[in-house]
Amino acid sequence: MGAPTPKNPEFEALVRGSFAKQGLMKTIGADLTRVLPGAIEIVLPASPAVMQQHGFVHAAALAAIADNAAGYAALSLMPAGVGVLTTEFKINLLAPATGDRMLARAHVVKAGQTLTVAQTEVFAETAGQEKLVALLTATLMTVTGRPGVVD
Amino acid sequence: MGAPTPKNPEFEALVRGSFAKQGLMKTIGADLTRVLPGAIEIVLPASPAVMQQHGFVHAAALAAIADNAAGYAALSLMPAGVGVLTTEFKINLLAPATGDRMLARAHVVKAGQTLTVAQTEVFAETAGQEKLVALLTATLMTVTGRPGVVD
Amino acid sequence: MGAPTPKNPEFEALVRGSFAKQGLMKTIGADLTRVLPGAIEIVLPASPAVMQQHGFVHAAALAAIADNAAGYAALSLMPAGVGVLTTEFKINLLAPATGDRMLARAHVVKAGQTLTVAQTEVFAETAGQEKLVALLTATLMTVTGRPGVVD
Amino acid sequence: MGAPTPKNPEFEALVRGSFAKQGLMKTIGADLTRVLPGAIEIVLPASPAVMQQHGFVHAAALAAIADNAAGYAALSLMPAGVGVLTTEFKINLLAPATGDRMLARAHVVKAGQTLTVAQTEVFAETAGQEKLVALLTATLMTVTGRPGVVD
Repeated sequence: MGAPTPKNPEFEALVRGSFAKQGLMKTIGADLTRVLPGAIEIVLPASPAVMQQHGFVHAAALAAIADNAAGYAALSLMPAGVGVLTTEFKINLLAPATGDRMLARAHVVKAGQTLTVAQTEVFAETAGQEKLVALLTATLMTVTGRPGVVD
Repeated sequence: MGAPTPKNPEFEALVRGSFAKQGLMKTIGADLTRVLPGAIEIVLPASPAVMQQHGFVHAAALAAIADNAAGYAALSLMPAGVGVLTTEFKINLLAPATGDRMLARAHVVKAGQTLTVAQTEVFAETAGQEKLVALLTATLMTVTGRPGVVD
Repeated sequence: MGAPTPKNPEFEALVRGSFAKQGLMKTIGADLTRVLPGAIEIVLPASPAVMQQHGFVHAAALAAIADNAAGYAALSLMPAGVGVLTTEFKINLLAPATGDRMLARAHVVKAGQTLTVAQTEVFAETAGQEKLVALLTATLMTVTGRPGVVD
Repeated sequence: MGAPTPKNPEFEALVRGSFAKQGLMKTIGADLTRVLPGAIEIVLPASPAVMQQHGFVHAAALAAIADNAAGYAALSLMPAGVGVLTTEFKINLLAPATGDRMLARAHVVKAGQTLTVAQTEVFAETAGQEKLVALLTATLMTVTGRPGVVD
């Protein structure tokens, strides 16, 4: 279908700048590795700092990078001067998340004027091999005219 | 309806011990503040370390404590010797999460032999006032006989 | 907390009129049995016409009345002259749905200007006894200024 | 990745026979149009019998065919002698569902021993043109040894 056309030519700088302001991403050690129109990749190294009690990467850490990737995929197609907020997301955990690092790859399913739906696949990478471990669907809202909520 | 009866009399020690092993909860600064049969509270101070780009607590940080509270609410009613894993969760963000700290309160909706459904309300507390900011529903699985997956 | 105050004093007539226009509710035999501000009940008799292959009421039939109850709970709190549309819903099936009739009871969790979140519990009633069989969470949108989308 | 290999060589007859027993599918007028290993298509004509109050196909009717397609996609990969039940599903409505007929196309994302995750895209077809109107993710359970719950 081809890549969607961004409304904001500065979308990449915008997304990278917004990501850099997120305390949570720094806290868990996630990196923004790819910014395309409607498509984002975020990577999380699988350190003990993001694990649950059995030594897997915590479902909530997968959700964190997957939700964030979905949000920035949505923002990349929004016009300039707005903010993006997640209104809801749903994640299915498909396999225990073990490996060297987790890769969240999001793409926009439908970009509407008010609401955007995006989906993220999360892969666990071990020695260069990827395995699908989670699938997230999110609804993102384009926020306009609310002071402080601008990306 | 009254509190459900736990199958494992040591449920509180079990839940507290399992929580203490979670790197992610330490990393984001969350505390386990209440362990009852089928009901859990987890608290997260609203520091910049868990925020998103507009200065709200990140949706994924709310999801982290809400998912975890749901998981331990489920575990509190499981028999001894098993492990708990999240199979899926869904969260609705109801209002921007600002305040002093976030409180995730989970209760079990239905405890089945294989699957348990739990729900978590997340409140933002500001100067002692609470406001509902998120609602999560999760499905948790009782894992038996899988080496390494024991709580 | 008390019942919320409806913005539209004619909310009950509006909801009842809108429900009467739904072909699907007639087709499956559902009735609108209760209309309060922010709270709706819809009842579905458990006939073979709404069953799945094992003789349970179909998950999708439960979803139909639960989604609809959530939608009308949301509409009951909206101002006059708008339309309501479901943007997403999630349902957990908690027990096989057998019984005389299914009762979907929805209430509004958060009524926002654009988005409303509502939750519905579905009970299977057998000889006057009710059992919780499903739990749905939905996001509803207030649609304004779109010709044809008015309730 | 190629089509998955079914464990039950009779999967197509099994799925078609099970579908034929569903009262709800007859009631709404849905047809099972395609049965492949891990992939199902169900079609629903857009008659007033399945509409909501604005003349769109009801979200719950889309959910009905989408959930069912996901369920049979899962069943097509299960061994003989079991039953399939939906444990939860989530649907996002992406655009008003208008057209001649609705096509639900499901594929299995992950087939596990106990739980299978499947996803369904629903398209509205108008004069041969298809438009994506809904996206569903479901968790299906393989039920063994429960009398009456066999497909």
